Amino acid sequence: MSLILHTLKNIPIIRRGDNLADILLKSLQDSKVELQDDDILVLAQKIVSKSEGRMVNLANVQPTTRAIELGELTEKDPRLVELMLGESNEVLRTRKGVIVVEHKLGFVCANAGIDHSNVMGDGDSNEDYVLLLPEDPDRSAKGLREEIKQKTGKSLGVMIIDSHGRAWRNGTVGICIGLSGVPALVDERGWQDLFGYTLKATLVAVADELAAAASLMMGQAAEGTPVVHVRGFPYPLGEGTLKELIRPKDMDMFR
Amino acid sequence: MSLILHTLKNIPIIRRGDNLADILLKSLQDSKVELQDDDILVLAQKIVSKSEGRMVNLANVQPTTRAIELGELTEKDPRLVELMLGESNEVLRTRKGVIVVEHKLGFVCANAGIDHSNVMGDGDSNEDYVLLLPEDPDRSAKGLREEIKQKTGKSLGVMIIDSHGRAWRNGTVGICIGLSGVPALVDERGWQDLFGYTLKATLVAVADELAAAASLMMGQAAEGTPVVHVRGFPYPLGEGTLKELIRPKDMDMFR
Repeated sequence: MSLILHTLKNIPIIRRGDNLADILLKSLQDSKVELQDDDILVLAQKIVSKSEGRMVNLANVQPTTRAIELGELTEKDPRLVELMLGESNEVLRTRKGVIVVEHKLGFVCANAGIDHSNVMGDGDSNEDYVLLLPEDPDRSAKGLREEIKQKTGKSLGVMIIDSHGRAWRNGTVGICIGLSGVPALVDERGWQDLFGYTLKATLVAVADELAAAASLMMGQAAEGTPVVHVRGFPYPLGEGTLKELIRPKDMDMFR
Repeated sequence: MSLILHTLKNIPIIRRGDNLADILLKSLQDSKVELQDDDILVLAQKIVSKSEGRMVNLANVQPTTRAIELGELTEKDPRLVELMLGESNEVLRTRKGVIVVEHKLGFVCANAGIDHSNVMGDGDSNEDYVLLLPEDPDRSAKGLREEIKQKTGKSLGVMIIDSHGRAWRNGTVGICIGLSGVPALVDERGWQDLFGYTLKATLVAVADELAAAASLMMGQAAEGTPVVHVRGFPYPLGEGTLKELIRPKDMDMFR
């Protein structure tokens, strides 16, 4: 069994309102990839957010008193903190340079997933622009999947990923923040192992594992390879949701 | 750029003292994979632990008072808890069915990484055997890498992986617990993004990302595909260590 991850060529710099499905199809062509049913396209959050116009000019943000205080505490631009607060349900931890929040989308992450790199507004200057996460990444993934299905006849999975830090390990890893046509979790509870033992508790976050794999191929910086084509995903495609990947608050080992 | 992960065929059930390097080379041959420099072999912890004889018969374990108490609290076999305590520096959290520890190897994990599935002792019965992690997984990886280099002339990377839960997300993902000839982290701090911005803080846990990818292909249960061959890792191979992947205690966001 083989899993093949392939970075797509010639993805241009994405701007508000760009049609991502068309861009993906063009790039697949340039990369000489012929889509097959059950292929998966993994997209960096950044290009989805940009196409949805989620860039914000910091010059237009008025920080509240709370954002100013939290900005001083964490040594962050209070306007950026204001946006983080607006994107979050709750602040969980603060440390110099980091605000750990429960994002409105439900997951725990640093700095509400707001990104300052590779962001340019609609004007000339990129000085003050930051990028929020897509409003509803599952919906974004679904929209792309349906549009590609309509245009090519192929049934794909689509996943949107970001890079997150971990509580107790160094470095970031790719994780899934939105998906359509890909299972989020595979429940191996109740399967039997090689000796006929019934496994008790193995719920595998296959979407996050695939996100990590794709993230490895995307790189983070100037390479600009924000889309990875995947062939050979070892489980049947099926409808997963972001919510399945999020530990319920009362089961959260962090809080 | 392509990353190709391929599960190897015909890995037999591993027993204490088996020569893993020879088994891997035979399996590569059966799988028609010709090794190249810079390929990586990713091994499930389980087969490394077994070859190193890390199975323990619970019938021979005498629980201490502390293990009995903790066993009652978490509804776990006190003999299993005794082994978990012996494998750990510190108990960090307990919950019904879960003891979160700092393992002697330095990382935070559930149940000290002790595995009850696919384990068989050297005798007939597998009823009471559990499996501890390798004593020094970096050393195990290094030994395998050197033996393969000596037998084939090829310079590979070798990684040993396990499945861990996360603090705030559902499901397990593959993570690296030992490596040789593979970078643990890639420091992208100081790189410039597409617009010439200098990225501030992107330290990527590439070993964990690759572990997740390989884990996706291994499955957890009866499939028995505990080795994945990797071609096309997108960074230069170099010497990483498990220690680099572990967040220093004072930077741990969990404690």
